[in-house]
Order: sequence, then C-alpha cells, then structure tokens
Amino acid sequence: MNCELISVGTEILLGDILNTNAQYLSKELASLGIGVTHQCTVGDNRERLLSAIDLAFSRCEMIIFTGGLGPTPDDLTKEVCSEYFGKELLMDEAIAEDIRKYFKDRNRTMPESNLKQALVPKDATVLYNTCGTAPGFIMEKDGKTMIILPGPPNEMTAMFRKSVRPFLSEKSDCIIKSHTVRTFGIGESDMSERVRDLLFMENPTVAPYAKSGEALLRVTAKAESEEKADGLMKDVISEIESRLGDYIYGIDVSSTEEALSKILKEKKMTVSFAESCTGGLCGKRMTDLSGASQIFHCGVISYSNEIKEKVLSVKKEHLTKYGAVSAVVAAEMAEGVRLLSSSSIGVSVTGEAGPTSGDGKPVGLIYIAVTDGERLLIKELHGRTGGDNCREYNRIFSASAAFNAAQTFIKGSVRSESLREFIESH
Amino acid sequence: MNCELISVGTEILLGDILNTNAQYLSKELASLGIGVTHQCTVGDNRERLLSAIDLAFSRCEMIIFTGGLGPTPDDLTKEVCSEYFGKELLMDEAIAEDIRKYFKDRNRTMPESNLKQALVPKDATVLYNTCGTAPGFIMEKDGKTMIILPGPPNEMTAMFRKSVRPFLSEKSDCIIKSHTVRTFGIGESDMSERVRDLLFMENPTVAPYAKSGEALLRVTAKAESEEKADGLMKDVISEIESRLGDYIYGIDVSSTEEALSKILKEKKMTVSFAESCTGGLCGKRMTDLSGASQIFHCGVISYSNEIKEKVLSVKKEHLTKYGAVSAVVAAEMAEGVRLLSSSSIGVSVTGEAGPTSGDGKPVGLIYIAVTDGERLLIKELHGRTGGDNCREYNRIFSASAAFNAAQTFIKGSVRSESLREFIESH
Repeated sequence: MNCELISVGTEILLGDILNTNAQYLSKELASLGIGVTHQCTVGDNRERLLSAIDLAFSRCEMIIFTGGLGPTPDDLTKEVCSEYFGKELLMDEAIAEDIRKYFKDRNRTMPESNLKQALVPKDATVLYNTCGTAPGFIMEKDGKTMIILPGPPNEMTAMFRKSVRPFLSEKSDCIIKSHTVRTFGIGESDMSERVRDLLFMENPTVAPYAKSGEALLRVTAKAESEEKADGLMKDVISEIESRLGDYIYGIDVSSTEEALSKILKEKKMTVSFAESCTGGLCGKRMTDLSGASQIFHCGVISYSNEIKEKVLSVKKEHLTKYGAVSAVVAAEMAEGVRLLSSSSIGVSVTGEAGPTSGDGKPVGLIYIAVTDGERLLIKELHGRTGGDNCREYNRIFSASAAFNAAQTFIKGSVRSESLREFIESH
Repeated sequence: MNCELISVGTEILLGDILNTNAQYLSKELASLGIGVTHQCTVGDNRERLLSAIDLAFSRCEMIIFTGGLGPTPDDLTKEVCSEYFGKELLMDEAIAEDIRKYFKDRNRTMPESNLKQALVPKDATVLYNTCGTAPGFIMEKDGKTMIILPGPPNEMTAMFRKSVRPFLSEKSDCIIKSHTVRTFGIGESDMSERVRDLLFMENPTVAPYAKSGEALLRVTAKAESEEKADGLMKDVISEIESRLGDYIYGIDVSSTEEALSKILKEKKMTVSFAESCTGGLCGKRMTDLSGASQIFHCGVISYSNEIKEKVLSVKKEHLTKYGAVSAVVAAEMAEGVRLLSSSSIGVSVTGEAGPTSGDGKPVGLIYIAVTDGERLLIKELHGRTGGDNCREYNRIFSASAAFNAAQTFIKGSVRSESLREFIESH
C-alpha cells in the first residue's frame, strides 16, 4: 500500500515553521510497510488543496493531511476534504463541550472561534485530541482514505499513536523493518566504500547516511513478519560489523549519548561533565534521556577561565602557559568535575567552536578528556575551521566525540595513560 | 515570480532525515519576494522525478532542487535534470582537481566514485561548493530555470547565500519584508483574539504562530522597496504593541535568550545559570549565540541534591523540608550560582519535566528564580502534566520562561521581593 502526505499551511511555505510532521509520519508509515512516494506542502488555499488531493489520489489510495485544523478563518483543511468527498459539516455537541472544558480546566476564556473545531464531516470517524482542541478525522469513500490530523507536532503524534497507527496496522499486508548501524570517526564516503557491494542489494537494502560528523548504515528488509525480516538482515549486519569494526558505536541506539548512557547503566557508573565550548550541550543531551538522574549527577559550564580555576581547580599557570584550549586543561577539567561530583568518571570538552577564535587557537581545535581519577584518555579533534554553521557543527560534533570517547574509555577499547603522570609532565 | 521546491531523497520519504532545506529556502525566497506555492519531496527515482519536474513547470517558471548530488549510484538529480533539458554531462577537470584536493587537504583517500561529482551539464552555470565536494548548478532553457543544490544543509545554505541569492535578487521585481512581534506568557488563540481584526488585512498581512509555549505575530508587507514596506507596517506594529503590552518580549529578535542577551549587553551585566530539570539547555541556548562569553560566565547543572548543596550552597534542611522543586530551593540555587561566578545576576530552574516525577511533585511544576543578591523574582509555572513530548516541551518552555523572567527582572517591569527576607521566612 502506498500513501502520500499533504502538509497544509502557508506558514510552512513561508519558512516560518519546520515541517517535522512529514518526517515523523514517513518513519511511522515505513515501519508499517506503507510506502510514502510523495510528500507535498500546499498553502491554506482551497483550489490548490483540491488539486493536490486530486493528483495524490491519481497515484495512491490514501492521503494523510496535517495542519489547517485551527480556529482561525484561514484554516480550511477539514472544509476542503469534506467538499472533495461531498460530505457536509455538522456541529458535534460532545466535542464542543470538550473544547469548553479544555479552556475551563486551564482557567482561560474560550474564544468563540474555537467552536469551529467542533464541526465534524458527516460519516467521518472522529479522532480525539488529547493534547489540544482540534479533533482529527478519518474519512473513507470509494476505496479512498483521507486521514486528517492537526498541525502542532505534539497533538499530531499523540493522535497518530493512539488512533491512526492501530487503524493502519490492520490495512497493511507486510512489514518493513530496519536496523541501524551507527559509526563515529569515519566519513560517509569512506564508510560507503568499505561496504560498497552491499549498497546494491535489494532485500534487505543497505543505505548510508551522514549527520553532524556521524555516518550510519540503515539495513531494511520487507517481509511478512518481524522474524522473517530479521532473518533476512542477520548475515548482512554481521558482515558490516566485520568490515567497520571499532568505528561502530552501536546498533539500534539512537545517539552517542544513548550508547554512553547504556554502558554506564550496565556498569553501574556515573558521569559528570565539564563543558567549555559546548556550553551545556553535553548536559542537555544526557538529560534528554529520561532516567538520566541514575547516571548523570553534575555538569559545570565553565565558560570563563575564572570558573575553570575556581570551580574545577584547573591550575592558573596551566591556563596561562597552555591556554584554555589545551590537553592539560582538558585533563584538569575532567578530573575537577569528577572530584566535585564524586562521579565514577569525569569528561571535559574545551575547544574553539568558532566562528572566531577567543583564545588565539585555531577555530575547530577541540580537546576532550575522560578520566576515572587514575587513567586518562585525551582526544585532540579538528572540527570545521569556518564556513556556515561551523559553530553549531563543532559543538554537536565535539559533544558526540565526548560521549564516544567516554564509551570507549569505559569499554577499554582504547589506550589510556596515567592521569598523574600526564599532569606532572606539564 | 513563483517558484517550487523539489527535495530529492528516499531518506526523506523514509523519515530518516528532517527536511530543513525546504524551510530555509522558503524563508529566503519569501524575503526576496518570490512566492513558494508548493514544496514536494520525491525519492531517488527517475520517473517520479521527471513527473514532478513536469508538474512544477506547468505551474511556475522556476524549480529549486535539493539533494541527490552525492557520489553514490542512487544520486541522480543532476542526471535527470540534464535529461529533462536535453543536455549532456561533461567531465570538468577543474572540479575533479578540486575534489582531489579536498580529500588531500583532509589527509583522506578519495574514493573513485566521488569523481561522478565532477560531471557538469552542458551550458550550466556551476556553483562551487565551499563546504563539500558536490557542485550545484543553474540551468536555464526556454524561460524555465532549474537551480540544483546539494542536500547537506551546511553545503546548501553556503551555496545559496554565496551564489543563488545574488542570482535571484536580480530576477525579482518587488520585495517582501516581515517583522516579527514575539510574546511570552499568552496563548496563541488568546493573542489572536486580541488582534482579530488585524488578521484580515491584505497588505501588510498579520499572521499568528505558536511554538513551544510562545506565540508570535508576523507582519508582512509587499512593496517596491524596504522603506515602503516598513512604512506600510509601522502603524500596524504600534497597534499590536498597544494591544499586547508586556506580553511582548521583543520585535525582530529570534528568541527569549537573544532578548535577554541584548539587555545584558546594553546594561553591561553578566548572568549565570543553575539548572536542574533543564539539564544544560539554558547554557546551551545562551552559548548558541556567538559572543556569549561577554555575558555568560558559568552554568551549574545540579542534577542531584548533593550538587545543589555542595556546589550551590542550597540548605540541606530546605531540600528535605520543601523538596528540590520548590521556590526556596530555586532562590538558593540562583543566589548560589551568582556568588560562585561573581555574576550580576543568577538564574535558576528547578522542576519536574516528566514523563514521571522523581521528587513527588506533580509533573509540569517548575520554579524559576532570578536574583541580583538583593532583589528576588520567583515564578511558579505549570507546564505539561503528561502526554507525548511532555519532557521536551517542559524543558524548552521552562528555559524560555527563565530567559523571559531574567529579562523582565532587569527591565524592572515586574515586582520583585527582598532575597534575604524571602529566605529568612522559610
């Protein structure tokens, strides 16, 4: 079964908002074995929306719409879809009551315009909105299905999971399953070269992707059941593992921080971060993961040298002699935050994220240190030296590198040195 | 002039990557007075891409493509566009040399497949890629224009700014200019009700948007020049200001942190953050802004009670009696980080981001404190109590609320109390 996505909203065409809904729905549909062949965005415009529906139904039997269900006069998705199927809109008193209650519960006055959201296309299945006031709908006619969802991502995803996914599962006759092999420290084209022959397979398929300094391979199989799909993928994944070896930091983990978090939980260890150029991004990414408090106690964002000295006990003479962006300062920051928080390991990041250099060191130079108080791992990295998004890239890249360094340090798969000897040699 | 966007890539249709390029290009084109009527995504598939080109050219005279310029065999945008215009592909030795040099400069071996990127459609204008190896192209034929750009956002945006924007500026006969009025603390529908009559205007237009607990109005005018567009918008913006008053935190600023950063720079003040539930997000967002080191010295991510006591000098009896999520702990955290870092003001965030509660307090309860050592501002917030993305929403929302609270504290537009009296009363 194929499906097309139509996102409705002039704000998307003006670039005011990022269309995350299309990504979410595509991923969910892929996992259900439903192919998405086209994604399309049109404005809040009756004629263009009608044409888009007509075109999509000439190629497939199902359309999922997002957006245009709001209370304002320009919101017209429900109206146009009802018109296309020749269905009238009827006021649903139960929904109207829910909307009034939604506002009352929040001590807010309901603008009258919100009642427009209680109009329901005749014969449609109503999808209740647990996060907002606009209900969604499923409308079917002559073998064609329109699924109409609200635009705000939190409302849309909750409604999809609760009502749409179960509806679609029943319609699909096969499943598509993927496994993701994630690497760090190897470029996309380099990675692709090593597995070049595998990229031409048909079932499973192997496809390379790159993102913020990481490269990954997605292995995808189409089969009748999850077990059969996994059977198709098993040998291919083993082959990839043998070719990419230590570059792989995880299979089916979603990020370097998740891989680190997993090994910390397994080993019942805790971690703290001392961050300079990443400015809190390491902490933010660690605590994006629910349950982070088991493994993450403390972060210090030591953006100034004064804080490095005062809070993390970095030696003033080292800051003067080597600068804040140096291996020895990174080592002292990592040990400083570890002692401050009594964590099993301390991790530090100090670097020049750019766009300009503050410390006289080249933009893109980054040091990472990991220590358990005895052993020390230092990594010198070279990120982007300039260009657009250089600051953002270097910050994301160095946080990922810090998570990856900590993971390899704990696994013992890299050579580390003595912390004391390293500090004393300076 | 109208334009359509075609994003090419099976990875977008599978939901593996988020299509940020469409947003970026739409925003840029809007600012040039070029209307985007449709955005469309198709897979790496010759027939579908040819149909999409045909359809787009039936509605407009210009298409901008992103993606499908990579070195792998499935990348075929350039090939299909050349075929559509009936142009052959020729090897460009200068580009081939650049690609070889790109790899040599990075001490990496060039995979032979990369040379595919040196093939150039006959008569095309080549757009050099300053961030990667795939060049872009502008192809014109019979009044139709195809602009072909690489998929990786950093490569695409750099190329757009350097080569495509100047090319398009010459083509456009009018400009579209927007101003954005940003609010905090008022819902989208509430805000819209207050300016309801303005939402029906034609030039300028006024449109409401909502995002992570913030609501904003975008005022957009179409005119021959920037001055004329500003003239059209002036009175409307004054009217909005008088209706929304203190809810407005800035006009043409991009975020609450930017508004805070601006006032800190104006007043030559510094700020430090003590973060619990936001886990580093406040620091991360402050240091996303280049030049943050002038105003931001230090952040402490005190994820455990131990760190709140030890590093921030929060009283143990207060943690026991009131819990970590309480007004008094928030106040002590703010003052603790201010003293630690010798900043002008200290800001703290402590709350239950969810999805589950750790401290026995309800999910969504958040306290923010701002202090300069004498005066204290406390905010009790109620974020989402559950549902999808509740954790992410509460973290973004409470960081924004902290920035907004600090801005209003500095402006003196809110009532504050005595820090000493507040602490002593507990």
